[in-house]
Amino acid sequence: MIITVTLNLALDVTYQVPGVDWDGVNRVSAVHRRAGGKGVNVARVLAALGRDVLVTGLAGGPTGRAIEADLEAARLPSALYGINGDSRTTLAVTDADHTALFNEPGPDVTADELAGFVQHYETLLTGADAVVLSGSLPRGVPADTYATLAAIAAGRGVPSIVDADGDPLRHAPEGRPSILKPNADELARAVPGGTPAEGAQALRGRGAGAVVVSMGADGLLAVTGEGTYAARMPYTVRGNPTGAGDSLVAGLALGLVEPDPWPDRLRRAAALGAAAVARPVAGEFDPDVYADIHPQIIIT
Amino acid sequence: MIITVTLNLALDVTYQVPGVDWDGVNRVSAVHRRAGGKGVNVARVLAALGRDVLVTGLAGGPTGRAIEADLEAARLPSALYGINGDSRTTLAVTDADHTALFNEPGPDVTADELAGFVQHYETLLTGADAVVLSGSLPRGVPADTYATLAAIAAGRGVPSIVDADGDPLRHAPEGRPSILKPNADELARAVPGGTPAEGAQALRGRGAGAVVVSMGADGLLAVTGEGTYAARMPYTVRGNPTGAGDSLVAGLALGLVEPDPWPDRLRRAAALGAAAVARPVAGEFDPDVYADIHPQIIIT
Repeated sequence: MIITVTLNLALDVTYQVPGVDWDGVNRVSAVHRRAGGKGVNVARVLAALGRDVLVTGLAGGPTGRAIEADLEAARLPSALYGINGDSRTTLAVTDADHTALFNEPGPDVTADELAGFVQHYETLLTGADAVVLSGSLPRGVPADTYATLAAIAAGRGVPSIVDADGDPLRHAPEGRPSILKPNADELARAVPGGTPAEGAQALRGRGAGAVVVSMGADGLLAVTGEGTYAARMPYTVRGNPTGAGDSLVAGLALGLVEPDPWPDRLRRAAALGAAAVARPVAGEFDPDVYADIHPQIIIT
Repeated sequence: MIITVTLNLALDVTYQVPGVDWDGVNRVSAVHRRAGGKGVNVARVLAALGRDVLVTGLAGGPTGRAIEADLEAARLPSALYGINGDSRTTLAVTDADHTALFNEPGPDVTADELAGFVQHYETLLTGADAVVLSGSLPRGVPADTYATLAAIAAGRGVPSIVDADGDPLRHAPEGRPSILKPNADELARAVPGGTPAEGAQALRGRGAGAVVVSMGADGLLAVTGEGTYAARMPYTVRGNPTGAGDSLVAGLALGLVEPDPWPDRLRRAAALGAAAVARPVAGEFDPDVYADIHPQIIIT
């Protein structure tokens, strides 16, 4: 079983509006609501690949209950940890020409709630084959929390992936995660100056087992204990890059539970990321694109 | 006890945004969520005046549960009837210069659900002193439903007020409600041509006990069995007219449960409507404005 941890679970809402009046009354023609947050997207991809997954994280209030209900409707097994604050909603308002995103500030998490979650997480680790730690942290959760959670997993022999930005990414190597997955911009912020290879090597030097840098259409760079590899894409997939990183992380998580060599892991992860671009919704990938691009990816 | 019926209950959400990018990512600085719908606003005003109220209506899904939780938090007694669909959300996105409103389509109500609600409503009528029927109807609810509900109340000796627009307003007199409360535009749509007095008289002729027409700063016109009265305002209250009609309806509901003559009823209703304009949020009124304007209203 692969556990995905999303400390800042969200309800992702989309309003489709036929031509928006930004200073008037708009009739919403279609509403979509689904559980969101990067770990949820990773779990959706893993479940679509037939893997056992478990979604955990912090959820509270009416929005938290809506998130839990959607996970149930999607048949994604979950064991969320309840908090007092109301979980955040992210809203996308979209017409033919524009998309405006509105991100709520989300709940404040207390120290007691976080301590309760860590206990809950330790219980869940029993029987876990790998842990995925991804996404932003809600207010009140310290920046070294992913390092803490990765270290707890490592202490029990459970490999982990961290997909984070900013301070949580900078702290992450302290927990000795198996893999860090920044994109090129996130890496440049965490380790300013130098090439992506130098930045990745620096994060490895601080404790990460491997660092995989996603570079969009330019593919992947992996600095690992077995060596450094690049995955180059044979062509560019057009579509929506939102969620491509989560699909890629799902591919890397598979590499933690199956004894494939790094070049094979990287090929699969790169193909899953590209196949997600072909789908408009995060957490999905196009199996035809996957099948087509997978053998053509160049690993060096 | 006064029952307020809101068949299309809503969760009213407000996003405050410091300068909106209508084609980008916006950080929401403050979020407000509260139970809404015209009957909820009426109940808030009645409760603030110390009256026993009961909120009923149709609610379903995660949004329905959020509505119910907010009513509980506001200590407004409620006995909602559960439906399968998700209740609607209304969203206001507001920055310094603009307010954009987004109205979700809301749930589809089945014939069985409506029949179940009518039974529920009949049970609640035991012990009711008056019923307020207000707001739009969700999809699947026939336009003559307010007429049906008013007739059921009348059959049990319970007086009713209907505050509706369009076809529900046109059908309402068939149920012999005690009072119909259209605004001037709604009246003109329901009875095209003629003066407000003629329109109101026409609706009385079709079965309404009295018709009270709200005309904003121009006051009220009441065509009743005791005669025709006008309430003229001594001055214009500046502020937010949203919710003024609901506060006015609360005042008219008081007139149904207390044996005041029509001029006194009208004076109180007009003062409550004006006092609501002084508050930015629907369902509230300013007691100082009420105390000041009440004696100055001119009834003719």
